[in-house]
Amino acid sequence: DRPLMLIAGPCQLESLDHARMLAGRIAEAAEAAGMAWVFKSSYDKANRSSLSGKRGLGMEEGLSILSTIRAEFGVPVLTDVHAPDHCAPVAEVVDILQIPAFLSRQTDLLLAAGETGAAINVKKGQFLAPWDMENVAAKIASTGNERVMLCERGASFGYNMLVSDMRALPIMARTGYPVVFDATHSVQLPGGQGASSGGQREFVEPLARAAVAVGCAAVFIETHESPDTAPSDGPNMVEIDRLGALLQGLAAIDRLTKR
Amino acid sequence: DRPLMLIAGPCQLESLDHARMLAGRIAEAAEAAGMAWVFKSSYDKANRSSLSGKRGLGMEEGLSILSTIRAEFGVPVLTDVHAPDHCAPVAEVVDILQIPAFLSRQTDLLLAAGETGAAINVKKGQFLAPWDMENVAAKIASTGNERVMLCERGASFGYNMLVSDMRALPIMARTGYPVVFDATHSVQLPGGQGASSGGQREFVEPLARAAVAVGCAAVFIETHESPDTAPSDGPNMVEIDRLGALLQGLAAIDRLTKR
Amino acid sequence: DRPLMLIAGPCQLESLDHARMLAGRIAEAAEAAGMAWVFKSSYDKANRSSLSGKRGLGMEEGLSILSTIRAEFGVPVLTDVHAPDHCAPVAEVVDILQIPAFLSRQTDLLLAAGETGAAINVKKGQFLAPWDMENVAAKIASTGNERVMLCERGASFGYNMLVSDMRALPIMARTGYPVVFDATHSVQLPGGQGASSGGQREFVEPLARAAVAVGCAAVFIETHESPDTAPSDGPNMVEIDRLGALLQGLAAIDRLTKR
Amino acid sequence: DRPLMLIAGPCQLESLDHARMLAGRIAEAAEAAGMAWVFKSSYDKANRSSLSGKRGLGMEEGLSILSTIRAEFGVPVLTDVHAPDHCAPVAEVVDILQIPAFLSRQTDLLLAAGETGAAINVKKGQFLAPWDMENVAAKIASTGNERVMLCERGASFGYNMLVSDMRALPIMARTGYPVVFDATHSVQLPGGQGASSGGQREFVEPLARAAVAVGCAAVFIETHESPDTAPSDGPNMVEIDRLGALLQGLAAIDRLTKR
Repeated sequence: DRPLMLIAGPCQLESLDHARMLAGRIAEAAEAAGMAWVFKSSYDKANRSSLSGKRGLGMEEGLSILSTIRAEFGVPVLTDVHAPDHCAPVAEVVDILQIPAFLSRQTDLLLAAGETGAAINVKKGQFLAPWDMENVAAKIASTGNERVMLCERGASFGYNMLVSDMRALPIMARTGYPVVFDATHSVQLPGGQGASSGGQREFVEPLARAAVAVGCAAVFIETHESPDTAPSDGPNMVEIDRLGALLQGLAAIDRLTKR
Repeated sequence: DRPLMLIAGPCQLESLDHARMLAGRIAEAAEAAGMAWVFKSSYDKANRSSLSGKRGLGMEEGLSILSTIRAEFGVPVLTDVHAPDHCAPVAEVVDILQIPAFLSRQTDLLLAAGETGAAINVKKGQFLAPWDMENVAAKIASTGNERVMLCERGASFGYNMLVSDMRALPIMARTGYPVVFDATHSVQLPGGQGASSGGQREFVEPLARAAVAVGCAAVFIETHESPDTAPSDGPNMVEIDRLGALLQGLAAIDRLTKR
Repeated sequence: DRPLMLIAGPCQLESLDHARMLAGRIAEAAEAAGMAWVFKSSYDKANRSSLSGKRGLGMEEGLSILSTIRAEFGVPVLTDVHAPDHCAPVAEVVDILQIPAFLSRQTDLLLAAGETGAAINVKKGQFLAPWDMENVAAKIASTGNERVMLCERGASFGYNMLVSDMRALPIMARTGYPVVFDATHSVQLPGGQGASSGGQREFVEPLARAAVAVGCAAVFIETHESPDTAPSDGPNMVEIDRLGALLQGLAAIDRLTKR
Repeated sequence: DRPLMLIAGPCQLESLDHARMLAGRIAEAAEAAGMAWVFKSSYDKANRSSLSGKRGLGMEEGLSILSTIRAEFGVPVLTDVHAPDHCAPVAEVVDILQIPAFLSRQTDLLLAAGETGAAINVKKGQFLAPWDMENVAAKIASTGNERVMLCERGASFGYNMLVSDMRALPIMARTGYPVVFDATHSVQLPGGQGASSGGQREFVEPLARAAVAVGCAAVFIETHESPDTAPSDGPNMVEIDRLGALLQGLAAIDRLTKR
């Protein structure tokens, strides 16, 4: 069992300076906790609750920033893709392609992502059972690409609420692929603020601790210096000032769990 | 209040002869019940549970069949689209573009569909609340296209099961757009057979009756001469032999409801 | 198939005069719709959300009122029981004992109720599947009492919300026992107002119509002249002034459904 | 923060010898892990899925066994009560009265339990939200008894399945009362075997670890030397041979969490 990995960054790319600032702060926090990390950010939010939500910088500028972060910090970078024809150009720059939860059953996207040879982090659809992810992973693996990660990010639980079923982690781990716990989107209240999603930042830490105690391979945590003014997912991002202490706690549980 | 409309056809296009045979049978059943109807079928199943599920005939052959049915039977035709660049070519042939439930939050697809000027039937995501559909409709309406239909097809209820919340029909109707009840996919057991979805055909009729008694504008019912050997959604399609009696019952409830 | 029966009354007994006034109004509405009816009311609300909720008049005064209504209006009366030793005294006065949903698995209560020989209306627990009710009915039937009615009143759907699964009606009907649809408690928002439950009165009619179109044996509708000032379940009771029109609509659907 | 406490024992009392054997094994395991513990067992299973489920030894013999275990092992004992008039006699023998989840809203039972002055462990109903438990605790506290523990044991998630929402632990902890995580009943599949409940023993450990990492006050784990032949809850009890290792893991996480 390899030590816990961190996937972190701002939900949405805002500018190179902003990404650089956050990458620096994440690097500090992760190194202090002894954790390898991946920089995550999106250049396009393709499925906002409403049209009024900000879409992002676009692919060209976004990939340029990710490429710079990758080079300057020497870390792998991850971003999400929304259409089959985006996979190849994105994979030229990023190390890990992410399949959004809503798109986790779209065969063409999964195949196009797989064919790039990049690592693929597939978010489990809010409408899927953990055992359904075996078929999702098999679609990717059919391209010959076995570099798959399966990511829990909450299951639909009534309206405008998700629940994190910790059983999903060992169930998905039976596939043999590493399992990621997304502590940010698991505490989303989808559509809960009318034209945008709400969130419960106070539960990021308890749920992340729970997932690490169960034995996941990586945690996914979005972070920002001022979540409440961030262009998306503000209500569920962790303040960058608090990331260090949170990671220390997770690393300690992880050492116990995997020893 | 206009009388109940029917959207019907085989889940997946199999051949022109097959589509023609079913369209003939549906026409008979709908006319006997005094219902206007739309022919529905898919040329590509883009989100099968597993890779082993049949994808379909493809766009070119599919649109050719739909075009023939449209001309021969004088009925509007409906098919689903999965990518923004499919919307314009499909809208040249079909009257109603359908947005699949998993894709109901994908902004680019909704905008591209809206821009064709065709009518759009949006399936409500299994992960959405009925009131969330107002924002979905607004994305389409932002293109100037107000020909929107909102379609209930079940909400996630635990794992591998959906529930039809009949409250969703009046809630979505508050938008002013016509509301469709999809009686076929509401009785799906998603992923319930391992590599494919199961279904509960015996509940199509009770749920359709319930929806009509609540006052929906249209019902969506997939049908086949031999559902158990159909390439997709067999477990929840209605046998074409039983469609006539089912529609008679629905039309009678509809007349009571809308008088 | 016998015509639809109505179970109606105020959630909670307030006084003889109040019960008499409502019984008179219900009698008018039911007779105009050609429906047989049962007077329902509770003398003790034993499971209020919080201590501050009003409990009721108590067994002695409650049974006296129910007995008077029964005699004056010539209708069967129904009330709920919460402890095994209440069953025998209550059954001396009322025709139908009702088992509350939270208590639908309590063996001693089911047996004590069954042993009275009275008809028993068991509410399906919010935590039970419709097929689980077969075992519940079998507990009662083990006493030799087959006068069982099974009642759908909503299933837990996330927190503080219920959903009415219309499939539950035909599933419970497979037992051979008559199935009741409780349109009042199905629209409850349990605990939704902090110290009491909220409700969605506007959905009583659509859900009742849906249930009748599916083919239930009886509907259960609580009613009050001023629901918003009633001591319990106000947010989901129907105004007595609107009961007549509602019943006319249900009776018409029922005639279609059972012809 | 006090160290993690253990509540453990066989689901159902079978005989004094059996209880003594298990108490001895639990004592060893708990002491090795440095955990204080409470012996739990039931003398009556009042809400079995079906009549064919074994009810238990009855109150007299049950209390006699619990009293003996209490004296011989010098540990507090816990058992569940199902009727108000059982509370006083049971409280003469046991230290902690437990309110079953289905009965967590029954005011008379909560008051009668509170009035004994004993500690009360209330299971959260499968149909309740974590914030609803504040009103439940207030019913008990109205008797002047503040010795309340609130216990998470799973929330209804579709039919025949529960989900453990780890957010429930910090939410219930806001009341100021200690929070217990029941790792045994949280992995129940209620009604999942037709006439009895199924279970998923393999998830007891991951869920218990998760709950401890989140910071609960106690864990509740039913155990047996041969779960598969036990008279109740076999599918979700832990084999006594495995309890020691499980507790060591939990104690280590607890020390990290509360330091």
